[in-house]
Amino acid sequence: MEKANTMNPQDTAAQWLAEEDAILSRHTLGTGIARREDVAGMSGIEMLAAMIAGKLPRPPMSVTLDFLLIRIEPGIALFQGRPHLKHYNPLGSVHGGWFATVLDSAMGCAVQSTLPAGKGYTTMEFKVNLVRALTEAIPVVRAEGKIVHSGRSSATAEARLFGPDGKLYAHASTTCLVFDRPAE
Amino acid sequence: MEKANTMNPQDTAAQWLAEEDAILSRHTLGTGIARREDVAGMSGIEMLAAMIAGKLPRPPMSVTLDFLLIRIEPGIALFQGRPHLKHYNPLGSVHGGWFATVLDSAMGCAVQSTLPAGKGYTTMEFKVNLVRALTEAIPVVRAEGKIVHSGRSSATAEARLFGPDGKLYAHASTTCLVFDRPAE
Amino acid sequence: MEKANTMNPQDTAAQWLAEEDAILSRHTLGTGIARREDVAGMSGIEMLAAMIAGKLPRPPMSVTLDFLLIRIEPGIALFQGRPHLKHYNPLGSVHGGWFATVLDSAMGCAVQSTLPAGKGYTTMEFKVNLVRALTEAIPVVRAEGKIVHSGRSSATAEARLFGPDGKLYAHASTTCLVFDRPAE
Amino acid sequence: MEKANTMNPQDTAAQWLAEEDAILSRHTLGTGIARREDVAGMSGIEMLAAMIAGKLPRPPMSVTLDFLLIRIEPGIALFQGRPHLKHYNPLGSVHGGWFATVLDSAMGCAVQSTLPAGKGYTTMEFKVNLVRALTEAIPVVRAEGKIVHSGRSSATAEARLFGPDGKLYAHASTTCLVFDRPAE
Repeated sequence: MEKANTMNPQDTAAQWLAEEDAILSRHTLGTGIARREDVAGMSGIEMLAAMIAGKLPRPPMSVTLDFLLIRIEPGIALFQGRPHLKHYNPLGSVHGGWFATVLDSAMGCAVQSTLPAGKGYTTMEFKVNLVRALTEAIPVVRAEGKIVHSGRSSATAEARLFGPDGKLYAHASTTCLVFDRPAE
Repeated sequence: MEKANTMNPQDTAAQWLAEEDAILSRHTLGTGIARREDVAGMSGIEMLAAMIAGKLPRPPMSVTLDFLLIRIEPGIALFQGRPHLKHYNPLGSVHGGWFATVLDSAMGCAVQSTLPAGKGYTTMEFKVNLVRALTEAIPVVRAEGKIVHSGRSSATAEARLFGPDGKLYAHASTTCLVFDRPAE
Repeated sequence: MEKANTMNPQDTAAQWLAEEDAILSRHTLGTGIARREDVAGMSGIEMLAAMIAGKLPRPPMSVTLDFLLIRIEPGIALFQGRPHLKHYNPLGSVHGGWFATVLDSAMGCAVQSTLPAGKGYTTMEFKVNLVRALTEAIPVVRAEGKIVHSGRSSATAEARLFGPDGKLYAHASTTCLVFDRPAE
Repeated sequence: MEKANTMNPQDTAAQWLAEEDAILSRHTLGTGIARREDVAGMSGIEMLAAMIAGKLPRPPMSVTLDFLLIRIEPGIALFQGRPHLKHYNPLGSVHGGWFATVLDSAMGCAVQSTLPAGKGYTTMEFKVNLVRALTEAIPVVRAEGKIVHSGRSSATAEARLFGPDGKLYAHASTTCLVFDRPAE
């Protein structure tokens, strides 16, 4: 149910943060939205790989809520995020909306990674289960999104958000619409 | 299906922003989490009214993502939020996670508004439908959360997020766990 | 939150059952699937009205689980169902799947009622909240489905299932894909 | 994404049906609800194993919609069902409610399989994604439910429904409330 992990959580967290630093060091384009001509002709996974490689600007929400795409393969997207006080709800723990943002990103990118050039997607709905409270005491978490069904005009995906000790904090599912993007 | 509105959208937006300014002018305690002793003995709706009145600090996430509780009555919570570039996803519109954050807040507070002193709640899951893209071109939106079922150990609620012209952008439903809070 | 009802529940139930009898008395075509040529050129609401009028066969699942479309208007579908022992789960009350079936039907038909001739739909996902146990002690319940958002390629709807005393038993939301049906 | 299967689908279907026959041959108690005294002191998994062994009556809905619990282990429940014409919606394929019924059963039993004696559960909500139409042409399908999170007062689970060729037809997630059952 939860990921076995032989490394101790402190070492895992340190390694995760080192991976993040390595990626962020390549992000020299600042924050913004890629222009259409920058991504013309790219498949979904090519766009996402370009994002990790720092060849596209970092999406604004990812800076605002301190999370990051760190790995992509066909049908699987791995995000990392850092819980901060600024993400807290009035009850004194990370807001459900922060989980939703990171999980939605992981699921959307899992879907996007399966799309050929000329295809786009939009998220129609997602559901998030919050199973454990999260605070700043956990320095870093990851969310893995996986495609479940990939159809001609829709796709579904799932994601899980877990800590360096393998503990599950939240999980989610989504339904996306897939469509032809107008030629660029 | 969508709210009729005889006022023109510009005037509605101006009025909504004026209401927000009035509330924010009373928020002199800064950002933070209320201490247990500050809310001891309060019912859910008393806590939420104290928040609107500026007698409790503003929750961190509400500052980070620029949204605000502006009205509360038993079973109904009204939030307002401002879409900004900093909330954008890589696709160039407001991130689904921003909708989720505002809608989750509206639903959670709708539930909280029904709880007597000594009862607490936690969100177990929510689902968000995203039905229309949102950009900075819309200066302000509102989300209304409404209790649907209020039981002994659980509650459900729904919410809709709409613009000054009554257009619907997203809707959601949630399941919350209701429990006894340890005496303060 | 729940429908006020000045009539007493017994009288309401009797009236609901009388309405059902009136509709069933017109259903002389038996159980089955309408042939394409029988519905060619019909809009969604015309098909559903023909179903109520007994001009199309009764859908198999509606016979198997004893529920029925009893009223249709643009964007709103009203179903009625009878809880029976044969619908029970191992825990001794009506199975969540029975609620899901009736609610999914109500939401799907609410969507269908908005479609012009030549358009079809398919349900991509639905979520059901079960808020109160239901047994044979309640002779009849109703589920009202309502369109929430109607777009070019997708639509969303919500539904509630309630008893003759107005008590809410379950509620739901759905996302449907809308598409062009091949010409008949 | 979908289960690899080296056996050909016809052989798999035949094997699945043979397993079902073996279980049904032990079901001599008929259809009904187990009495409290029949399950007193049993853990969740003991009850479910007794059901498979034919030592408890078969739940009514499982007969009505022709599906069956065929295997149980801690946190995992496997159901099997047969799509029939009587399960069809007006569109000519198996009703979404049939998927919901089988998936809800699989998820509920996955949760139940983790509960010690004296604990009960109830399903608060579930969401179903329908990803492929199903007809009588597929003689038999399976749904596997798996626990995702098991907490003190709630639990979550997921399930997938697939055919003998490994094709995915639907998937789902659920939130259950877990509580102390009054002593028997």
